[in-house]
Amino acid sequence: MLSANLPTIKFLQQPTTQQWLEQALIHLDIVLLDHSHCERKAAGVALNLMFRYPSNVKLVRSLTAIAKEELEHFEQVNQILESRGIPLRPLAAPPYGAGLNQQIRAKEPDRLLDSLLVCSLIEARSHERLGLLGAHCPDPALAKFYRGLMASEARHCGVYWLLATAEFERSVVDRRLEALAAVESQLLSTLHPEPRIHS
Amino acid sequence: MLSANLPTIKFLQQPTTQQWLEQALIHLDIVLLDHSHCERKAAGVALNLMFRYPSNVKLVRSLTAIAKEELEHFEQVNQILESRGIPLRPLAAPPYGAGLNQQIRAKEPDRLLDSLLVCSLIEARSHERLGLLGAHCPDPALAKFYRGLMASEARHCGVYWLLATAEFERSVVDRRLEALAAVESQLLSTLHPEPRIHS
Repeated sequence: MLSANLPTIKFLQQPTTQQWLEQALIHLDIVLLDHSHCERKAAGVALNLMFRYPSNVKLVRSLTAIAKEELEHFEQVNQILESRGIPLRPLAAPPYGAGLNQQIRAKEPDRLLDSLLVCSLIEARSHERLGLLGAHCPDPALAKFYRGLMASEARHCGVYWLLATAEFERSVVDRRLEALAAVESQLLSTLHPEPRIHS
Repeated sequence: MLSANLPTIKFLQQPTTQQWLEQALIHLDIVLLDHSHCERKAAGVALNLMFRYPSNVKLVRSLTAIAKEELEHFEQVNQILESRGIPLRPLAAPPYGAGLNQQIRAKEPDRLLDSLLVCSLIEARSHERLGLLGAHCPDPALAKFYRGLMASEARHCGVYWLLATAEFERSVVDRRLEALAAVESQLLSTLHPEPRIHS
């Protein structure tokens, strides 16, 4: 029973379903490969935000640390892939990321707020799902690896949220986070047929 | 006299001029700020190549290490900027990078070869110029910092070149490197009016 092991993750409106976990556990190799892509993408997103807001010292400093950490996780996942003989290869992205990016308003300062909150939500979901894999993965080494990473994802979620609250009124952040979180849960309400971290 | 301290840098067809060094030493604050942008851009370029060639294990592994290191240097430069009270701010890029990128042919596998060799040349030039700053900067702490970084730039230059030789015939690499190096030196033959690492 999934719910017994599932803590309520702050920010997420709907918890991950049993169906996602079952799909992921059947296709651990693909989920690992997708995880590698996710870590590289996360580093890229942090770097892009640093490019876009080069004068924001707090943002630049926090996101440099996050980008470095994502690259370390990327290396770790790639080492696991290599040790399991899973070759690196491209993988079609699920609709999740594009769906969230569509919510980012084009005009500043909305764009900054939305970008930070979308990142925060993605990290929150990653935290939840890596936690599920850490609790339910039958391979002890892999389960331990997931449990090791889930704390970082929670921390990153917090960093993005803190950056948002440093720039915007708390009530504005709360309201927008609620709206984006609704979309985030909606995007995952139908299980994507291909197994992914965010399917 | 510049030439006495100037080693010949492999790959570079023309050494940096006395004029560049004089310009840089007069405007150390701007050069430091530009250096910060260069390190962040270098991390971005490495990450973009990883995105473009996700199945190339050797490339992905080497460039993950480079991207991490560039981010560490980015942090270090930003700490120096902060300690000197120089605020982070955008800075117009000199024509150098765009001029080199124009040389990258669009069709694979030429695109990969050219991308790797352009990166190798930029790192070679950075190595040379940080070496000059390390030798001639009147501020001992800053001079030491530049001397500390110049070895990494040389190493990165070598990594990009090795990646090229792993994928292409040595004669093909040598010929293309020579052509690109000619453009690289040509781009720097007229000093850009704004002081930059690659002006």
